[in-house]
Amino acid sequence: MSYLEPLFKPKSIAIVGASRTPGKIGYEILKNLIEYGYSGKLYPVNPKAKEILGLKCYPKVSAIPDKVDVVIVVVPAKIVPEVLEDSGKAGAKFAVIITAGFKEVGNVELENRVVKIARKYGIRILGPNIFGYVYTPLRINATFGPKDVIPGGVAFITQSGALGIALMGMTILERIGVSTILSVGNKADLEDSELIEYLATDPSTKVILIYLEALVDGRRFVEMAQKVTLYKPIIVIKAGRTEVGAKAASSHTGALAGDVALYKAALTQAGVLIASNVEEAFDWARAFSLLPLPEDKGNVLLITNGGGAGVLATDTLAEYGVYLKPTPKDLVEELRKITPPFAALGNPVDLSGQIDEVGYVEALGKALQHPEVSGVLALYCHTGFTDPPYLASLIIKKIKEIGGLKKPLTVAFIGGEEVSLAIRRLTLAGIPTYPTPERAASALAALYRYIRVKEEIKAKLGIK
Amino acid sequence: MSYLEPLFKPKSIAIVGASRTPGKIGYEILKNLIEYGYSGKLYPVNPKAKEILGLKCYPKVSAIPDKVDVVIVVVPAKIVPEVLEDSGKAGAKFAVIITAGFKEVGNVELENRVVKIARKYGIRILGPNIFGYVYTPLRINATFGPKDVIPGGVAFITQSGALGIALMGMTILERIGVSTILSVGNKADLEDSELIEYLATDPSTKVILIYLEALVDGRRFVEMAQKVTLYKPIIVIKAGRTEVGAKAASSHTGALAGDVALYKAALTQAGVLIASNVEEAFDWARAFSLLPLPEDKGNVLLITNGGGAGVLATDTLAEYGVYLKPTPKDLVEELRKITPPFAALGNPVDLSGQIDEVGYVEALGKALQHPEVSGVLALYCHTGFTDPPYLASLIIKKIKEIGGLKKPLTVAFIGGEEVSLAIRRLTLAGIPTYPTPERAASALAALYRYIRVKEEIKAKLGIK
Repeated sequence: MSYLEPLFKPKSIAIVGASRTPGKIGYEILKNLIEYGYSGKLYPVNPKAKEILGLKCYPKVSAIPDKVDVVIVVVPAKIVPEVLEDSGKAGAKFAVIITAGFKEVGNVELENRVVKIARKYGIRILGPNIFGYVYTPLRINATFGPKDVIPGGVAFITQSGALGIALMGMTILERIGVSTILSVGNKADLEDSELIEYLATDPSTKVILIYLEALVDGRRFVEMAQKVTLYKPIIVIKAGRTEVGAKAASSHTGALAGDVALYKAALTQAGVLIASNVEEAFDWARAFSLLPLPEDKGNVLLITNGGGAGVLATDTLAEYGVYLKPTPKDLVEELRKITPPFAALGNPVDLSGQIDEVGYVEALGKALQHPEVSGVLALYCHTGFTDPPYLASLIIKKIKEIGGLKKPLTVAFIGGEEVSLAIRRLTLAGIPTYPTPERAASALAALYRYIRVKEEIKAKLGIK
Repeated sequence: MSYLEPLFKPKSIAIVGASRTPGKIGYEILKNLIEYGYSGKLYPVNPKAKEILGLKCYPKVSAIPDKVDVVIVVVPAKIVPEVLEDSGKAGAKFAVIITAGFKEVGNVELENRVVKIARKYGIRILGPNIFGYVYTPLRINATFGPKDVIPGGVAFITQSGALGIALMGMTILERIGVSTILSVGNKADLEDSELIEYLATDPSTKVILIYLEALVDGRRFVEMAQKVTLYKPIIVIKAGRTEVGAKAASSHTGALAGDVALYKAALTQAGVLIASNVEEAFDWARAFSLLPLPEDKGNVLLITNGGGAGVLATDTLAEYGVYLKPTPKDLVEELRKITPPFAALGNPVDLSGQIDEVGYVEALGKALQHPEVSGVLALYCHTGFTDPPYLASLIIKKIKEIGGLKKPLTVAFIGGEEVSLAIRRLTLAGIPTYPTPERAASALAALYRYIRVKEEIKAKLGIK
């Protein structure tokens, strides 16, 4: 059992600084924990309260008549050392220190003192200066962020607080399911390397997404990321990837964002997938969390009802290293039967704007079932002739009919209001669907890049 | 008066191939024209009908007892030559040929024949193989796409049909206002150079967005685009920007998408802003259509309530050539009064996650009014402490209070459901608002790039 197990699967959680006042962090976290449905024991700690949100309150952690796995700390910075002392004496295993006011504002000494106390007692620290953490398999939402996080396969580690909470909200809006959200803030103790090591074996996590400003130990991260990548993809949004950005980052967390070129080299060596922005990172994460990986390095079939969309996606695929091969001959023959005579059936397969919903889905089904096709990119432009929500329904039905997705499929639905409804429909059915051809292409290409990277690392490490 | 004036401002439009059957192109276009509110004369042409949608029907164009400026042609390809002959005899000025089945399917001879007839009579052709055109100032929607296009400053020229209609729908969903939409298809006659020349002086057009696969005359386009760019920005999405993409494009329209490197060089020389994807192109177009241009080359102030978002946007700005300068000293002093003591007020100005709505907007107002700040990028991460729709309302109020935007402002609101409502609110108020920091940064940077490009072209052409 990993030493991190009690953080993710605690039997009991104490909240030091629990509050009766709605809006206060010490209230919101406790409320989230209760309402999101954590079924372990919850102990609010507040010397001035007898009961908060229906739970008996304790004056300090050591007064709790039970072992405490995780202590959530929301008291002012200067009191944190004594809370750690007390928690240490009580045998707590983890301190999740929400409190800000440490290294990020120059209070290095105080942060070091807290870490020293933790080390003395064998307590591991998440934070400080964080918004908490989430682990959906155990219905833990120990954050003051939005409550109804959607369970799923994305593990999200974030060094930024405000942005992290905002993106947490975005995952709900965009229906991106998460296994865990880990706000790591100042990384005074636990840092990315250890967390990804644990997540590599976490059965709920399919992909790891890191918002990264600075690494504590770059070499250690590279080594660990290489190992983890053999099991699961790691997507990184590196903030401070330009000199000026790096400067802005260091004034933000107090951490050195470090040499830009060095970081790029290290991350590349680590085998992580570097996303160029937040949107792309989550687009990729969604695809990884929902789709099987392709079985070869590039036999993508691109299906479209609009030639232009096909060209744009072909460009994007190529820019990400996926080059379309000719459509298999027998597939061309089959497609010929169901498409207008002028349809161009090379790859991209342009079914033409005249194809109806049934024809489109028939072609898609044939592509998904063809043995030489390892992945499908399906683009749909809303023209007057077809009904997007109906097409979405047919796609969902077809996928069920063929026994679910055995190979990756990303979809783009391009258009207006009806298209946005159809995207919602496909998203709820677990099919990664995007509003532009380029985003769907980028997401599918990320899967192919991952299997290439994995092979490169295997070769480098001498693994067969 | 430009020779293109009667296309954009026709006194009368005939629809040859008008139909009584809903769902048919000849019905949908007539219906769109009527319902979108074109106030000129409309003449359905169909030898088998007496009346369509309440309008008297004519057997042919030459039977219409009136001069016809524009003839919309939706009859089968083989009949198009005789329609052109008849229209020519009747003195029509423009033929908008919706009909497909020409060069794009190898029917070069037929297309040439049609062009020859048109030349004989001095008719100019838009198309063939298009979905029609829109000109919102005259309430012309002569397409079979969605009807309720939103009037605004974006002129959209598209070589792709299905994708073009889909993007037309997207402009409605995303509330992007357009002046005109021109489906150019095979560009048998009228092509980009002439259209942008007209749009340069069209008072409703603030920015031109072109989906481009291939140019008919590259040199002519470069020369014209350079001239037009001095008046208005031109954004280009080039499909076929990779070798494989170019190949896919040529199988799509039958046009040669041409040498990839040559195209890139030509477009750069032309001074157009090359977008890397559909989303970016429309993000930029929205900003150009709504905002004043900055008055210098780079004094952007970045305001954020989340450090991480600030770093990501700083990176994006730098990648697009905008480097943040230190916050003016007097502005730092003013901001100091309204922010928590630990807020970092360099540029980015990190107001901290603790800032409330009022403080945020006060800071924004000060930035917008400071004489040394030429543009503002405002980022907002939804944390538990603030209410996004309320913040949106305060921003709108503040901008009214200071007499509207005198300098460019792009905004990012990052978060979940409440944020999406706030984005909608800001969008309806005409403030370009995006869901990620990078998209807002990219849009603002495009404005600065444009004024740099314009100066470069002026220098090249020897204009002061």
